[in-house]
Amino acid sequence: MMDQKLFANRVQSEVASRLQGLFPQMPYDDAITFTAGSPAENLFPKAAMQQAYLDAIAAEGAHTFQYHTVQGPVELRERLADRAMKRHQIQDIDADNVMLTAGGQQGIDLVAKLMLNRGDAIVVEAPTYVGALSAFDMYEPTYYEVPLEADGMAVDQLEDLLKQHPEIKLIYTVADFHNPGGVTMSLAKRRRLVELANQYNVMILEDTPYRDLRYVGESLPTIKSFDTEGRVIFLSSFSKILMPTLRTGWLVADQSILTQLYKLKEANDLEVPNITASAINQFMAKNDLDVHIAGLTSEYAVRQQAMVQAIKDELPDGVTATAPEGGFFTWLTLPETIDTTALLYDICTPQAHIAYVPSKNFYAYKNHSNGMRLNFTGLTPEQIQDGMHRLGTVLTAAMTVTTN
Amino acid sequence: MMDQKLFANRVQSEVASRLQGLFPQMPYDDAITFTAGSPAENLFPKAAMQQAYLDAIAAEGAHTFQYHTVQGPVELRERLADRAMKRHQIQDIDADNVMLTAGGQQGIDLVAKLMLNRGDAIVVEAPTYVGALSAFDMYEPTYYEVPLEADGMAVDQLEDLLKQHPEIKLIYTVADFHNPGGVTMSLAKRRRLVELANQYNVMILEDTPYRDLRYVGESLPTIKSFDTEGRVIFLSSFSKILMPTLRTGWLVADQSILTQLYKLKEANDLEVPNITASAINQFMAKNDLDVHIAGLTSEYAVRQQAMVQAIKDELPDGVTATAPEGGFFTWLTLPETIDTTALLYDICTPQAHIAYVPSKNFYAYKNHSNGMRLNFTGLTPEQIQDGMHRLGTVLTAAMTVTTN
Repeated sequence: MMDQKLFANRVQSEVASRLQGLFPQMPYDDAITFTAGSPAENLFPKAAMQQAYLDAIAAEGAHTFQYHTVQGPVELRERLADRAMKRHQIQDIDADNVMLTAGGQQGIDLVAKLMLNRGDAIVVEAPTYVGALSAFDMYEPTYYEVPLEADGMAVDQLEDLLKQHPEIKLIYTVADFHNPGGVTMSLAKRRRLVELANQYNVMILEDTPYRDLRYVGESLPTIKSFDTEGRVIFLSSFSKILMPTLRTGWLVADQSILTQLYKLKEANDLEVPNITASAINQFMAKNDLDVHIAGLTSEYAVRQQAMVQAIKDELPDGVTATAPEGGFFTWLTLPETIDTTALLYDICTPQAHIAYVPSKNFYAYKNHSNGMRLNFTGLTPEQIQDGMHRLGTVLTAAMTVTTN
Repeated sequence: MMDQKLFANRVQSEVASRLQGLFPQMPYDDAITFTAGSPAENLFPKAAMQQAYLDAIAAEGAHTFQYHTVQGPVELRERLADRAMKRHQIQDIDADNVMLTAGGQQGIDLVAKLMLNRGDAIVVEAPTYVGALSAFDMYEPTYYEVPLEADGMAVDQLEDLLKQHPEIKLIYTVADFHNPGGVTMSLAKRRRLVELANQYNVMILEDTPYRDLRYVGESLPTIKSFDTEGRVIFLSSFSKILMPTLRTGWLVADQSILTQLYKLKEANDLEVPNITASAINQFMAKNDLDVHIAGLTSEYAVRQQAMVQAIKDELPDGVTATAPEGGFFTWLTLPETIDTTALLYDICTPQAHIAYVPSKNFYAYKNHSNGMRLNFTGLTPEQIQDGMHRLGTVLTAAMTVTTN
């Protein structure tokens, strides 16, 4: 039995288990869970990806399976550079500006490892992606939170923070179809964010796993597209637009940054798995990723519509919901008297057989208890309607009790 | 351009690029490089592994490609627990004691992340595996070095260190066919190491990537097999015995330790790639890994013999070489007047068209300049003979010059 005194501080802190127990047990035949962050399996291009693995092995033979390099195949990085220029408005980049990572998660971890000494200051949205907090936690930073508004991070409050705390180094943001908030940052705020980063000498990590999954409205330029000083590190992933098991994400950044990040990746896990990266390259060579994504968005759009309608039809007054134009999630804000963690375990799970992720998990200091994240891409429109009806009934009762 | 002041201390230190530039450019048709740490590609079970990928997809369908869990498939962990009991003498474990990692490298990184605050003390062998140093560096530890002897780490010196520095938390060792040292730790020292760990309340990380690749002599019990207090974390990998691109290693440890390590892995990269782990599981179900390994050892044994003979035939007096019974490497110690880094770049590469890895890379403080690591598994016996003849000629000349 290991003496706990031998553990590092980072695993002794209370927050070190943010990712544990997010999803309650639901052993009911009629369970409807809004918890998932997983893409719909029936939309995976299974046959094409199987063929891509075979093509990768055929192309390289036994060498497919050898050690390669920390960077991984240049062909795939070229494709992603092209994609970043065409779809994400990032100018004048090539394969040398693209770094492959073990999912988006490793991208977040490596940027944190690059920048954060213990106690260093970082800005996150409130709420924010729980996996990002779990990565940042390991470097024991000081968090500053900026509230999320209907058009994204409250940039005026951000500026106040940057003025008060010149020690802030990094801003982490999910600008498109926020996880968990469901909102999208406005064009004006994207520009402003880059101006503030320039003015106050901070870096921005723009995390965009859902960016290609827009169901209504027009795409906005990335924050990175306004970057003239190399201050924005752009992060994307194949997990939501292709398949999670590929565990492949990518960063777009200045070469001087990637040079450092490659050293950190080598220390972490030596290199990208060549067979996986080569299979993705073969998939992209023989299939149109955008056609595949169009198939996803047309199916997910129906589910998003069902969620928007169910929010209107089923939720009581006093509950506000964000209106997602894409991505996986919507966010509910309840009266402050309601604790969504207690509600989940006391009533929703055992009685209504529904589940969501309670808000406190998405705040750096776990100090917001009256919100919840709802996924709508993992359920049929009928399940969404049924589950939201049950949720509306629970919330109406809970809000009656607590206001009496 | 990122302001360098925004970088964390860990990337600013001089040692942060241990893995960069290890292998010199060798643009010569007659080049012979003893640098490699890669297994021989012609021995990869290409067809069987391709079939294993297909079998994995057939068994699980589209779900193969979904998110799974941080632990990965229980079937593979069961197989590895069985293997650890049968071949590595570890008692009374099951799948819950086995953790899959992104290669052995991530296993080292995660153990470091579990235990090391900045400045914490760790013992490494001198020389030691450069990738381990690169992982440890990121947590900014204080290194204490114990010399490597013909029968492994100098445990008497280790005890002196443990007495003098009660703050030491972790001992890292490669007991079987050391990289880069080529030596194997004796049975007596393995027992003693566990006794010292118990007495001084430290943990041991036993790294065994080469353990299954023995060419002469009898296998010794693992250090972990003597562990009665849960102080030894056993680490192995598929990179050398199957294929590097799988990027799959595994740890065997007490559950209380793995519980913490899983949190750290989730923060790093969320989970094991299910398709890879499932393919390895299918490979192991339908092929006998030990038969495959026997094929590797019979071919590598010929090369090891050629190296042993070439050392006898070609090297001048005053050069000592370790006698590896397995693994990938032998280690040469030259007179202290010789700087092997200068020799490599001034003479061996440009004139003799041979390369090795100079010793300084394998020392925590880069302060040993008269050794070199030679790989013998990546070359034919004829190449080994030819390359060692050239090296002997260079060394004879260099030692004549420096002793005059």
